[in-house]
Amino acid sequence: MPKQNIPDIVVGRLPQYLRSLQRMAREGRYVTSSQELGERLGISAAQIRKDLSLFGEFGKQGTGYNIEFLSKQLQEILHVSHDWNVAVIGAGDIGTALARYKGFANRGFQVSMIFDNDPEKIGQSIGSFVIENTATMVEKIKAANIKIAMISVPAPTAQTVTDQLVQAGIKAILNYAPISLNVPPGVRVQYLDPSIHLQRMTYYLDK
Amino acid sequence: MPKQNIPDIVVGRLPQYLRSLQRMAREGRYVTSSQELGERLGISAAQIRKDLSLFGEFGKQGTGYNIEFLSKQLQEILHVSHDWNVAVIGAGDIGTALARYKGFANRGFQVSMIFDNDPEKIGQSIGSFVIENTATMVEKIKAANIKIAMISVPAPTAQTVTDQLVQAGIKAILNYAPISLNVPPGVRVQYLDPSIHLQRMTYYLDK
Repeated sequence: MPKQNIPDIVVGRLPQYLRSLQRMAREGRYVTSSQELGERLGISAAQIRKDLSLFGEFGKQGTGYNIEFLSKQLQEILHVSHDWNVAVIGAGDIGTALARYKGFANRGFQVSMIFDNDPEKIGQSIGSFVIENTATMVEKIKAANIKIAMISVPAPTAQTVTDQLVQAGIKAILNYAPISLNVPPGVRVQYLDPSIHLQRMTYYLDK
Repeated sequence: MPKQNIPDIVVGRLPQYLRSLQRMAREGRYVTSSQELGERLGISAAQIRKDLSLFGEFGKQGTGYNIEFLSKQLQEILHVSHDWNVAVIGAGDIGTALARYKGFANRGFQVSMIFDNDPEKIGQSIGSFVIENTATMVEKIKAANIKIAMISVPAPTAQTVTDQLVQAGIKAILNYAPISLNVPPGVRVQYLDPSIHLQRMTYYLDK
């Protein structure tokens, strides 16, 4: 199926399939089924088979999926067979946690730069990173041809940072700042504001 | 409309509306429109009017929405008129960032406890919190009648922690561990695994 015809909701499930498959591989497993994947993920087996069938023929009726093969295929589809360099903007608590986060390994991402505008932070180290001046951000991101950024700056400065990142050629932004960002067509944003996700659950809780 | 008939996708947009309205209020604004909200959020004005109409009559044709009134109504609907106490499990980088996070203020949440199983961390302070022993978690959460937890432990221990939280009466979990959690009916989980959100965007990027 042509890429542009795959619903985004299906695309959103593929990383979950990949994560489960990679976990199974670490558990020493070789083969799985849409049933087992579905139980792990709380998604129906039929939905998983339907989603995967949009991209190709990955399993045989009755013998299930080869975990390594399907993982590699999903990595290709999601463009994470090789690591993307990622810039982190904002070296506060969240930015620091991101720079030190070990969970990007084998998931396709590698933090390679971290920026802040606080003179007391610029030049300080976080692990193997030296915090760089946000004033040099556009130039450095362009020079390194980085396409992905994570924003962990205060909400009032997030849009300005975003505009600069777009100017620097960034195409995908993971936004931890609690604010909606305006970006031009061709640039994507995903939001990780914990309060938004918590409020989506409190709706269902008794007061 | 009866609560159970509201689609979850609509519920998921309400916190975004509330966040934008609260930002407008901080900007000193009193009145807004579905058009303006839509432009800030990248959601159509018609969608916003339709979503809100499921919950009541919040604006007048031609005069728009009173920001303070609609904010209060959405806070009531989302059950965040008063703060919920939240327990953080895992005092690593992410748990520490959550315990120190200022973005929960006025959003309905207040971190009130943080737990870890590392003897070197137990008893240490993070701001005004003292890290408590995970062994006492079930008892302390029950005693404090806490219903919401944030999990920031390594993936291999996240399911065990979840089972204990369910036993302690937790009904809503914000999960930072990169793993799918099994929970019984009546318990909700939202996932904040950055790699999942990044992979959802790299699909659309040129390799």
